[in-house]
Order: sequence, then C-alpha cells, then structure tokens
Amino acid sequence: MEIKKEDMDSIKSLSEVTADTIVKHIVSEGLGKGDKLPNEKILCELLGVGRSTLREAVRMLSSRNILVVKHGSGIYVSDKPGVSQDPLGFTFIKDKKRLVHDLVEFRMILEPRVAALAAQNRTKEQLIKLETQAAVVEELIEQGKSHAQADSEFHSLLGEMSGNSVLPNLEPIIFKAIDLFIDLSQSKLSHDTIGEHRAIVDAIRSGKSVDANDAMVAHLLNNKIFILKVLEQENF
Amino acid sequence: MEIKKEDMDSIKSLSEVTADTIVKHIVSEGLGKGDKLPNEKILCELLGVGRSTLREAVRMLSSRNILVVKHGSGIYVSDKPGVSQDPLGFTFIKDKKRLVHDLVEFRMILEPRVAALAAQNRTKEQLIKLETQAAVVEELIEQGKSHAQADSEFHSLLGEMSGNSVLPNLEPIIFKAIDLFIDLSQSKLSHDTIGEHRAIVDAIRSGKSVDANDAMVAHLLNNKIFILKVLEQENF
Repeated sequence: MEIKKEDMDSIKSLSEVTADTIVKHIVSEGLGKGDKLPNEKILCELLGVGRSTLREAVRMLSSRNILVVKHGSGIYVSDKPGVSQDPLGFTFIKDKKRLVHDLVEFRMILEPRVAALAAQNRTKEQLIKLETQAAVVEELIEQGKSHAQADSEFHSLLGEMSGNSVLPNLEPIIFKAIDLFIDLSQSKLSHDTIGEHRAIVDAIRSGKSVDANDAMVAHLLNNKIFILKVLEQENF
Repeated sequence: MEIKKEDMDSIKSLSEVTADTIVKHIVSEGLGKGDKLPNEKILCELLGVGRSTLREAVRMLSSRNILVVKHGSGIYVSDKPGVSQDPLGFTFIKDKKRLVHDLVEFRMILEPRVAALAAQNRTKEQLIKLETQAAVVEELIEQGKSHAQADSEFHSLLGEMSGNSVLPNLEPIIFKAIDLFIDLSQSKLSHDTIGEHRAIVDAIRSGKSVDANDAMVAHLLNNKIFILKVLEQENF
C-alpha cells in the first residue's frame, strides 16, 4: 500500500513520540517545577530508546520550556513548565505599535478584575509579600534605578493573590511583551507609580474589591496615556 | 581557563543558535503564516550549517509551532506562528477541576469586552462571516451533532472582530483548554446556545457594544452554571 503525503505528515518521529511520553510521565508522576528526572541511562531504559533519540526529545522539551538541562547535574522540570518565552507568538505580529496598543488594551480588561479578586481572596502572607514588593519598587524609583522588573513582579503577585490559577501564567507574558518593545524604565511616570501602587495596596489590605478595581483602572489609564504618548513621540 | 557549570548552562548548542537565526530571518523577511522557506540545501548554505544541525533546528521550531514540515513539499511558516499547543502550560496544572473553574472565570473577564469591541469595530465582511458561523452552529445542534469545534470558531471570530491583535491568539487557547478536560459536545445546553448566540449576533449587527457585552455575560453565565454542575455530577 502506498503511503500518502498527508499520512506522512501525521507520522511522528521517534523523538517526538518520546517527548510526548516524557510529558505524560511528568504529569502522571505528579512531578512539579524543579523536580529532577532520572538520569539519561535510566530514562533510555524506561523509554526503550537510544541516547541520541532521548537527547533530541529532551532538546525539544527544553525549547518548549518544559525541561531544563543542567550540565553535570541532570535533567529537571522547568520553573514554569510549558510556558515558553513567547507563548502567544508576539514575535510574529508585524505591527509592533499596534501590538503595544493592543497589549495595553488587554491589560485594561484583565488587571482591574485581578486586583478586585486579590482584595477578595488574598491571604495575610500574600499581603505582606505585596507590601514588601511595593516598598522595593518605591526604593528603586527613589534611587533613580530601573524598576521595570520589580514592577512586573508587583503585578505578578496580584495575579497569584487572585486565587485564579490561569491569571499568574498570563500576567508576566503580557508585561514582558510590552517591555520588549518599549523601554519605560527611566520614565517620568515613576513618581505617579508610587501613589498609584499605594492606592492599590491599601484597597487590597482592607479587602475592598471595588476600590482595588478602580485604583487599578486609574493606574493603567495613566500608563496607557503615557505609553501612547511615548509611541507618538518616538515615531515608533 | 576552567568553564564553570553556570556558563555551560548558558552556552547554546549550534542547533539552538540556528533555530534563533531562522526566527530572526522569518521576522526580518516579513514572512507570514503559510509562507515557504528556501529548500534544505539553500538553508544550509545561508546558515552555514550541516544538514543534521538544520534538521534539528527545524524540529525544535516545529515543536514550538513556528515551522511546519510538509514531506515532499518543503518547510513552511506555521498558521499560528509561535503559538504552541498548550502555550500556558495547562497540562502541568495539577488540579484540573480548579483549572476548568478558573478558565471559565477568565472567559467571564475577557469575552464580554471582546463582544463589546466587536460590536464597535467589526467590518461588514466580518459580520457576514459571523452570521454564517452562527448558522453552522445552529445546524449542527439541530442535527444532534457535536458543535464544539464550530462553537469555538464562533468565539474566535469575535476575537478577530474586536480589532485587537492579541485577543484572537488567546481565545482558542482558553476554549481548547476547557474542551480538553470536559466534554460538553453532547450537552443539553445546545438549545439555549442558539438563542444566546443570536442575541450576541443581533447586538453586533446593530453596533450596540453594551448590548453585546450583556448578551455575552448572559451566555457565559449559563455556560458557567452548566459546567460547574457537570463537574459536580461527574465527581470530576
């Protein structure tokens, strides 16, 4: 029987099948971030494949940010398993100005609700973490240092406090993507940020979801106006 | 000089470097979905690598859904370049019941606004496509056939009509993820869906963003109640 082209396309290589099996193994064994896999020799025996097939499978899973190979140490489950660097393919959206605009619009949809959920669902421990992170951002701003990374962590914490398991995976992606295309680290926005973050933290501390929602709207609106101005000025 | 372990980890293999170069090539040449890359021989010359290195790089990019290899035909840019099958790592979230709940919550945040934007920004051509798709869903429901895929396309169309370039990349991921964990295709929800979809289409046809928002809220609320009931019954 002749094999058709369409069939050929759907036939997976041995390394692809092996990669799928490793994923199933991670899930069924309940392995989580940072957990170590058995060594190469044992993996080859378990999976019934040769070393070169295994290595190719591991490289595939590394490129999808599922595994991390630490040389001389072993193979580990990644810290954010399965969430690759640019999981929504932003690299391939051609109009970068429009992309930044659309990402800001997306944050306007998402983050006020995230803040409201955080006010409702946060634990005491999470509140302390948030207050600490807000203080780190303030200090960086007052020292005139870049606060982009610390700011991103502040917003990621809110995602975790929302109690929704999907939102924390999304937040840093959106944040990082904007950061990729536009450098706001040395912006004049810094001093507004301090007051706006404080308003968000206050609302979350007192468990007021509506206030947290509105404080986030105010913060993001200021951000949006500023970013659109930068885009215009820089003839981006 | 001795190379430290940490340094070893950051050294990329030749195939990883080659993969990065191919991505840069796609972006700088402005290649888009479905575009064909030069053949293997030319690529090897362009990139200055051997055939086995190239093939490994191409396999890596295939696993990240950036390239598609069609046997006997060539190497193409994928239809949704860079958006891999499970880009947010849902496979690795252990509590599936909570995940479904959280995905439904996420849709409740996102989709009413998507519908409102669609009512404001849609073109005539997009409206016709949406009406056609709504008819397809209705027909499948009336024939008692699975309408999951057609339903997903209905919601994806709304993402495109929103005029936001980020939202269409997100919609199908969320939708598919829910679908992965819970089969709703044969649900009793079907007949409600017809009326609810019609209300959404009507609002979008007449350009009424508020009505579109509210129609989507009603649709998703019904969905949410139904899904939570299924989860409970099935002791999921």
